Amino acid sequence: MNYKMIIHILGWILIFEALFMTVPMVTAIVYGESAVWYFLGTALFCAAAGLLIRLKKPKNTTLYTRDGFVIVAMSWIVLSIFGAMPFFLSGTIPNFMDALFETVSGFTTTGASILSDVEALPKAMLMWRSFTHWVGGMGVLVFIMAFLPLSGGQNMTMMKAESTGPNVSKLVPRVKTTAFILYSIYFVLTLIEFILLLCGGMTVFEALNTSFATAGTGGFGFLNTSMGSFSPYIQIVITVFMLLFSVNFNCYYLILLGKFRDAITTEVKTFFIIVASAITIITINISHMFESVWEALLHSSFTVSSIISTTGFGTVDFNLWPELSKVILVLIMFIGACAGSTGGGIKISRILILFKSLGKELELLVHPHMIKKIKIDSHPVEHDTVRSVNVYMVSYVMVFAASVVLVSFDNCDFTTNVTAVIATLNNIGPGLEMVGPTSNFGFFSGFSKLVLIFDMLAGRLELFPMLLLFKPSVWKK
Amino acid sequence: MNYKMIIHILGWILIFEALFMTVPMVTAIVYGESAVWYFLGTALFCAAAGLLIRLKKPKNTTLYTRDGFVIVAMSWIVLSIFGAMPFFLSGTIPNFMDALFETVSGFTTTGASILSDVEALPKAMLMWRSFTHWVGGMGVLVFIMAFLPLSGGQNMTMMKAESTGPNVSKLVPRVKTTAFILYSIYFVLTLIEFILLLCGGMTVFEALNTSFATAGTGGFGFLNTSMGSFSPYIQIVITVFMLLFSVNFNCYYLILLGKFRDAITTEVKTFFIIVASAITIITINISHMFESVWEALLHSSFTVSSIISTTGFGTVDFNLWPELSKVILVLIMFIGACAGSTGGGIKISRILILFKSLGKELELLVHPHMIKKIKIDSHPVEHDTVRSVNVYMVSYVMVFAASVVLVSFDNCDFTTNVTAVIATLNNIGPGLEMVGPTSNFGFFSGFSKLVLIFDMLAGRLELFPMLLLFKPSVWKK
Repeated sequence: MNYKMIIHILGWILIFEALFMTVPMVTAIVYGESAVWYFLGTALFCAAAGLLIRLKKPKNTTLYTRDGFVIVAMSWIVLSIFGAMPFFLSGTIPNFMDALFETVSGFTTTGASILSDVEALPKAMLMWRSFTHWVGGMGVLVFIMAFLPLSGGQNMTMMKAESTGPNVSKLVPRVKTTAFILYSIYFVLTLIEFILLLCGGMTVFEALNTSFATAGTGGFGFLNTSMGSFSPYIQIVITVFMLLFSVNFNCYYLILLGKFRDAITTEVKTFFIIVASAITIITINISHMFESVWEALLHSSFTVSSIISTTGFGTVDFNLWPELSKVILVLIMFIGACAGSTGGGIKISRILILFKSLGKELELLVHPHMIKKIKIDSHPVEHDTVRSVNVYMVSYVMVFAASVVLVSFDNCDFTTNVTAVIATLNNIGPGLEMVGPTSNFGFFSGFSKLVLIFDMLAGRLELFPMLLLFKPSVWKK
Repeated sequence: MNYKMIIHILGWILIFEALFMTVPMVTAIVYGESAVWYFLGTALFCAAAGLLIRLKKPKNTTLYTRDGFVIVAMSWIVLSIFGAMPFFLSGTIPNFMDALFETVSGFTTTGASILSDVEALPKAMLMWRSFTHWVGGMGVLVFIMAFLPLSGGQNMTMMKAESTGPNVSKLVPRVKTTAFILYSIYFVLTLIEFILLLCGGMTVFEALNTSFATAGTGGFGFLNTSMGSFSPYIQIVITVFMLLFSVNFNCYYLILLGKFRDAITTEVKTFFIIVASAITIITINISHMFESVWEALLHSSFTVSSIISTTGFGTVDFNLWPELSKVILVLIMFIGACAGSTGGGIKISRILILFKSLGKELELLVHPHMIKKIKIDSHPVEHDTVRSVNVYMVSYVMVFAASVVLVSFDNCDFTTNVTAVIATLNNIGPGLEMVGPTSNFGFFSGFSKLVLIFDMLAGRLELFPMLLLFKPSVWKK
């Protein structure tokens, strides 16, 4: 383990955290809020610490795979701890564990909150919450890589660990250029949503917040009713963008290159088939609860998009919907978005690989001597990818089961425990019952919050970086 | 597909079903019940049909793996349909779907019932319910194999498909002898329990019923309070035997051969560690609900043994226990018993392999060029076994998710839906809430019952035989 290099990169993380805080600082200045000082203080501390750390350059810049994984995990932890400081120091969230929960929920684009009244927060704090979504969505190390090449190798490992999906590939040979292209697409899409929301009558503050939270598929809102009080136009814009940010960003890159055929992969098609089916079933299932089918369709589209993209915005309280609709929502909570998007969950491409490998296994029972590779989009899926997806699935189930047991010490009901873990591990936000869309996570004990914080990080970084931290052999020199 | 051979073997199944029905017939004669005629009628029909089918011997007796799987699946379906006839024809269970549910629940050793008042049933019907557990526990094709060699090859495939666990091995070179040894151990253990229960003051009828249901890890009782009204001695005997029947039967064979060291495998050790941990945590968690710690320990031991062995007997209503205890029970519902036992669930040996393959995957991230095979009891686990366990786990999750969605059409609460599927797919019996230990499955719609019937069969036959039935290529000649 190259400890010096890890600390060196954590120095960069602190410097970038200071830069990120300029966004809430500007907000605080615009609205004349005293919160500016807490952000300024934290930012100065981070910048100073980061610069100090970076003074001494490590001689050995070699990084192995495990170093890459540990760097990613540690970066997100450090980012969250310092990101929580303004909430904690200002007394907006007086309990540090709560402040950490809120910040991790932000960076991991979960959107689960411990706050019961977000409207009471200073605007700068609200902006910081949404902005953490935006930074976390595409990844902070990817962000750093886009703007400066990290010294040493293993950029690709870090990019893989921070990007979503089983099979992260470079768009172009250079990692730095890939990262830059991804962030450019991300920035432009966010900008378009921002403009469309402004056109719908949102204020600059509201439109910025909403765009950041949609782009990162986060879901922190700035009103207690989430998106329920906005016009159908606004709700439709958000619905469309939640879906757009759930699509593999490679798709947009290929469209820009004019390769339309290659852009619409099996994964993208499957994603939209699932979305359309879920919307149809739920619309029929809930239509009696609304005045018109159109209204039911609007809410069902918004909710399905919000859940499958793992954003977590709400327009209505889906906890009151019939059981079938709720179960379908829970199911798509697990499925999640496309690989290479900002969304969470297991990811469509993993589900595809799992289904195909099951089909192959059954085929093997019929024809035991058959030799066949799983193919997706007529590309064979490497054996290593299949194995890693299988193991991913198994570790997912294990982390899930262990978390439910640990959270149940609080003695809440079964549905609350299970959906709280689902909502955090898949980076969605709301669950059902006591963690339903109109409730919050504030009532959990400190211990349960810690478990859920772990789940949010494990979900965002796709398990392995966080699990590796518990492996003693990783920490050997 | 060798259709002629499949039908030929189904002929055997019908003949054996007729033989099995002599047990309830004798019961009916002893108690002077009119139920005897329904059993006699069904048995005569089955025997006649079976003999007729067997008149014409197929020329081609070759069976491929897929034939073996299809035979096992079809055998269990045919067995259940005819087994349900006495319930249905006598009007004891007037709805055929209900009668089928009850019979499948019997043969698959699930023990989930649609009856609200079992005490109203004729004794012959109660005996038939328990006896189906005993037959299903070790497997009906294994039973047939123990007494006559099935012509054609593929005995091993059928034995594998009907026995539990990822890695079924023969105790001795001949399949027939292996089957005979297994059934002998099974018979003797059942006999010992029967005698011990008689010593505790149970009647012959009660002791027989209880022994059959314990041996198959089934759980059908003959009193509405399950085992709650019996003495601590009886409850302790049942607890011990539920655990004994959850242990890999290879263990007993090795003990008989004097190979004590080989008998206590990692799987057996892990099983007892899990049981002891669960009992300890639950005893502490529920001690305030009982008059003494001893009483809490008694109920916690009974319940943990009943659930992890997937028997499903009850002494108390664990649905009223604190959430932590309930979640631990749900967790051990999934884990289940040892491979090669009569218990259900995912099986300890699969869990072991899954944990080890996860450990290896993490190790690979630290040392990417390491070459290492997973070992259990210092034997390397074959790559094919690991892959098959991974795929098993994935299909398990898929069947589970699909079942929950389908069952939720009935609009029961989330916990009921989820635990009803857990309780049937793992062949346990009771779940939580509306399917808790003091409730029953009668309220589900016919469609949901069909889904749960599929789950019970899929759980007992470990998924693949049932899933194969849906694969069109299997049905080609």
